[in-house]
Amino acid sequence: MTVFNLLVGGPTSEWPDTLKAGTVTGQWIGGDRGTLRLLDLGIDPVVAIGDFDSLSQSEYERVRAHVGDIRAAVPEKDETDTELAVTVAFRDYHATQLNIYGATGGRLDHLLANLWLVLKPRYRQHAHQIRFIDRQNTVTFYLPGNHEIQKEPDKKYLAFVPLEAVANLTLPDEKYQLDHEMVPYPISYASNEFMGSSGHFSFTSGLLAVIQSKD
Amino acid sequence: MTVFNLLVGGPTSEWPDTLKAGTVTGQWIGGDRGTLRLLDLGIDPVVAIGDFDSLSQSEYERVRAHVGDIRAAVPEKDETDTELAVTVAFRDYHATQLNIYGATGGRLDHLLANLWLVLKPRYRQHAHQIRFIDRQNTVTFYLPGNHEIQKEPDKKYLAFVPLEAVANLTLPDEKYQLDHEMVPYPISYASNEFMGSSGHFSFTSGLLAVIQSKD
Repeated sequence: MTVFNLLVGGPTSEWPDTLKAGTVTGQWIGGDRGTLRLLDLGIDPVVAIGDFDSLSQSEYERVRAHVGDIRAAVPEKDETDTELAVTVAFRDYHATQLNIYGATGGRLDHLLANLWLVLKPRYRQHAHQIRFIDRQNTVTFYLPGNHEIQKEPDKKYLAFVPLEAVANLTLPDEKYQLDHEMVPYPISYASNEFMGSSGHFSFTSGLLAVIQSKD
Repeated sequence: MTVFNLLVGGPTSEWPDTLKAGTVTGQWIGGDRGTLRLLDLGIDPVVAIGDFDSLSQSEYERVRAHVGDIRAAVPEKDETDTELAVTVAFRDYHATQLNIYGATGGRLDHLLANLWLVLKPRYRQHAHQIRFIDRQNTVTFYLPGNHEIQKEPDKKYLAFVPLEAVANLTLPDEKYQLDHEMVPYPISYASNEFMGSSGHFSFTSGLLAVIQSKD
């Protein structure tokens, strides 16, 4: 298992405590302003990605002194910095798991672009390897099949979130259950709960996010 | 024009300054914990909606003393408190415009349930009357047609966000343009900008959100 973490530029107020405390394991990738924030945490990312236009000369020199692999993104409307970073993680660094921090809070257009990245054909095959983590939420993604998920000890709520039409969604052993539900458009089935330390679910088409969260 | 505002229970850190300062015009609806927060602001909502189970006896008495119309929601998986409040606003209070505050920040399952409310058949006809407002974002919704939008003076970024497949999306006069783009799944075209004080766009099927935001 080759775990990579990616820090992008969302507000630090949404970071989980583990990131602030420097106890996250795995190698790091810096996305845009996330690179400087990693350096501030004492973490040298293996690769930095962004257009870096917003950095001062001294900031850019600092990045060059600490990061061996710098990828200058060409701004274009169909690939965000986050998307390019995800591409580099899987294609060039052969990540088997990518945990993304700094992707929530602040601007909603950024948040949605991040959450929906897995809907694009080139990332869909990696959906199950991508995870968003912030102070109150963990978001994972699933393709059709039978799945088991483990409850995170510090989270109370469990949400099943079809990001597009999903067929035969079945929740057999959660607090609120569904039986072969046909979901025609995106819905957030929020505020469900595990009945034990794990839960099962299945569906036959579409792409689904699972969100574990706490107040 | 009958403007109603709805305050739901998301974190107060995401409120815009106008809400904190009490300068928002129009009548108010309280959704769940939002009701108590309105009372704390010195605002008596015309109607309060929620299951109120989480309120203490004294908090509930306070709501009863200040609010003439109290709707106790029966928790069920297919209608959230926010959805019930939106139903009441349009059906019982004949709102022509509904601005929703407190719907962002914190739990992502709640945020997505709020944003996607307009995709449900019973709310789709009201999409153009619903607006989400927080500290950094204003979200509006559009059905197919030709539309003009006005730039908000304090916002820099403009995003076009198909919430489902959208056909022939055309952005003729924004910084980044599109010409009859067929959008097959949800995408956030983030970080676009107005070229003047207004902009135009059109599409022929689907439902689209427009997000004006600032850093």
